[in-house]
Amino acid sequence: METIKIAVLGLGTVGQGVVMMLDAQKELLAKEAGCPIELGRVLEKYLTKKRDVQLPEGMCTNRWEDILQDPSIRIIVETIGGIEPARTYILQALKAGKSVVTANNDLLAEYGTELFQAAREAERDLYFENSVGGAIPLIRALRQNLSVCRLTQIMGIINGTTNYILTRMGEGCGFHKALAEAQENGLTEPDPKADIDGRDAARSAAILATLAFHSQVHLADVYMEGITRITGEDIAIAHSLGYAIKLLAVCRNDGVSIEARVHPALIPAAHPLSAVKDTYYAIFVKGEELSETMFYGLGIGRLPSAIAILDDVVAVAQNIHRNCQGRLNFVEPRTLPILPMEKVRTRFFLRLLLTDEPGTLADVTEILGRCNVSIARVHQTVLDKGVAEVVFITHLAVEGDMQEAVSSIQALPATQKVVSLIRVEGVAEDS
Amino acid sequence: METIKIAVLGLGTVGQGVVMMLDAQKELLAKEAGCPIELGRVLEKYLTKKRDVQLPEGMCTNRWEDILQDPSIRIIVETIGGIEPARTYILQALKAGKSVVTANNDLLAEYGTELFQAAREAERDLYFENSVGGAIPLIRALRQNLSVCRLTQIMGIINGTTNYILTRMGEGCGFHKALAEAQENGLTEPDPKADIDGRDAARSAAILATLAFHSQVHLADVYMEGITRITGEDIAIAHSLGYAIKLLAVCRNDGVSIEARVHPALIPAAHPLSAVKDTYYAIFVKGEELSETMFYGLGIGRLPSAIAILDDVVAVAQNIHRNCQGRLNFVEPRTLPILPMEKVRTRFFLRLLLTDEPGTLADVTEILGRCNVSIARVHQTVLDKGVAEVVFITHLAVEGDMQEAVSSIQALPATQKVVSLIRVEGVAEDS
Repeated sequence: METIKIAVLGLGTVGQGVVMMLDAQKELLAKEAGCPIELGRVLEKYLTKKRDVQLPEGMCTNRWEDILQDPSIRIIVETIGGIEPARTYILQALKAGKSVVTANNDLLAEYGTELFQAAREAERDLYFENSVGGAIPLIRALRQNLSVCRLTQIMGIINGTTNYILTRMGEGCGFHKALAEAQENGLTEPDPKADIDGRDAARSAAILATLAFHSQVHLADVYMEGITRITGEDIAIAHSLGYAIKLLAVCRNDGVSIEARVHPALIPAAHPLSAVKDTYYAIFVKGEELSETMFYGLGIGRLPSAIAILDDVVAVAQNIHRNCQGRLNFVEPRTLPILPMEKVRTRFFLRLLLTDEPGTLADVTEILGRCNVSIARVHQTVLDKGVAEVVFITHLAVEGDMQEAVSSIQALPATQKVVSLIRVEGVAEDS
Repeated sequence: METIKIAVLGLGTVGQGVVMMLDAQKELLAKEAGCPIELGRVLEKYLTKKRDVQLPEGMCTNRWEDILQDPSIRIIVETIGGIEPARTYILQALKAGKSVVTANNDLLAEYGTELFQAAREAERDLYFENSVGGAIPLIRALRQNLSVCRLTQIMGIINGTTNYILTRMGEGCGFHKALAEAQENGLTEPDPKADIDGRDAARSAAILATLAFHSQVHLADVYMEGITRITGEDIAIAHSLGYAIKLLAVCRNDGVSIEARVHPALIPAAHPLSAVKDTYYAIFVKGEELSETMFYGLGIGRLPSAIAILDDVVAVAQNIHRNCQGRLNFVEPRTLPILPMEKVRTRFFLRLLLTDEPGTLADVTEILGRCNVSIARVHQTVLDKGVAEVVFITHLAVEGDMQEAVSSIQALPATQKVVSLIRVEGVAEDS
């Protein structure tokens, strides 16, 4: 029976995991795919670098052509990450008649349309389960299951690094120490910037929204705010009010426009998302024909990633074996406009330092009222030296109105500091 | 472009849901499948029965031959339920070269091997997402995602009717009233027996275990105990001790043998499953390469079922369109023995009525100790008329040992009644 050879591009944590499991699960893979699957070649820039995996003599190459021009390689597993050279390699591989499995949410969020167009023209497969949520079968659920219902909302925690950091901060650890820990534990990219500034989550949100709403959403369409401004104090105060702070992705489709945003948010303790800790992901999917469905699991790490990738490899191998590649499509035209952030309706947590004198609170609340922001809760604590800390939690308000209110509040003589403005999500509708 | 015609067998709640959504989602279905999908024929015994759906003249037939012999029908959607005539229809349809989508966990749990053998021989598809967990993409996750890892445990709530009843009982409603409600709300089969005696959950457990562990598990292999012996008192006492009572399915694979059981169980309030209410399902999947992954959503109901079925129809239509039916296989040989129930290790909640006199408790604890059952907690309440109610929660114990202990306790002169013996699951390993 035909053996299907794959090439792994990049021998980082994930690439090595794939090589390991490819060997460890040989029988299972062959059984599932209907034919043996074998490692054909590995592309790695640094041939001499120390690895956790032993590769046979000559398996590793630093020349892409060796793989591109090898007709026995049928599937390319791209674990390099980043835009280039991954983008060029994938496009060339598809043109050369190879199918591709990629873990690269960066590339998909920015060049998804181009890549899937190329896959369609080549009638080859482009699978990407691991690009969002590791082994949590989220991409396949949106691409195959749930593909026939009108999904209205995706909301969840889709970045493990920031969830780990926020979890540790909630335990009293400082941001920088928590970040350092995450790096030591291999939970971040060499450069953690894309994690902490929300970009990685925004990429995933763009991919999920595109799949869920059948309308192209690009990275640039996703409002993005990271966790760098969140302090231990914010988390402690939120906690004392009955909320956790998470980096949240919210994608909505009301049939008129699409809302896509990633930012820190307060979540009520009663909401399941508030209990999602460490590097776990949890994604809620809602649809017109579907009440809330939830997916929960480990989104990052060597093994979950390797599993997600090898499941894709098996699916592609089945398709090659059955000669039906290119079945699944992911070229979604833009059918709905993106709702501008200033028009988004949400709730807010606003924390102020005010000079503790008569009338100050009245001025602030007057401004909020004038800007159509109605207050659900207020907590005032007088700090030493005549300074009052005031925390507001609002009802649903329009982002633009709230921003206007905040700048007016900032202009008040009695306002010493607008300490933090954090959105609030996951509040039961009736509240 | 070729239009793919389907026939729906049975116009019950689910069958009507499929017919409705087939029309409502026409465009989306065609887009996803790559070709138009159309209702070709409906099989229904009672042609004159009142329906929620309007069918064109001549669409409905009560003669199976009209469908079997119609070559334009490519996909059969079986929503009749039960063993016969569903089994015969599916076998004949596959032989006739039609692919099949079924929602029938009853049939799959007992005749899965035969049906999938037939599908393989005919090189046709047999999809069954809705047979377990409605629109929760669990079957596809186990069949396609997660298919390359060595799964070690599946544990969860996989019957919506009993979960609804237990939820209502927890709110103080009696069993019979809760059951009547479930029936009024269309949450049970005409005969609810299979739900409340655990048979429906056991069927699903057999299917899940077979898929997860790549080893055939039949309905007869699954230990089964329903909720009929659970009382409001049990639930209240469990609650006071910090537990909820759920009908739980537990399937384990330790590499030596497979454990498969369905029974009521106490779940600690800290465990996510204890919070799963009403008709919601939640299934935890664990694997050697995979820490806990969880799926949550509505398992029953017209729309979730229709979505699950139509997602399968789309997948099968893609396969027909691409001429690659029969890709996925589900004929799993028995590779591991089933662990006999008396060898299963779990924890227990034991509730006794004892004559309130000196030495009684000592006699009971002596028996438990002799049978290698060690006690984690004891609660004694003296009821009126010299009767003491004693509740034990044990550490991990072997089922056979516990059963032996209970019969010895029953034989004690001071034992007035063994009120209840309920297993305890979901306790953190370290406890």
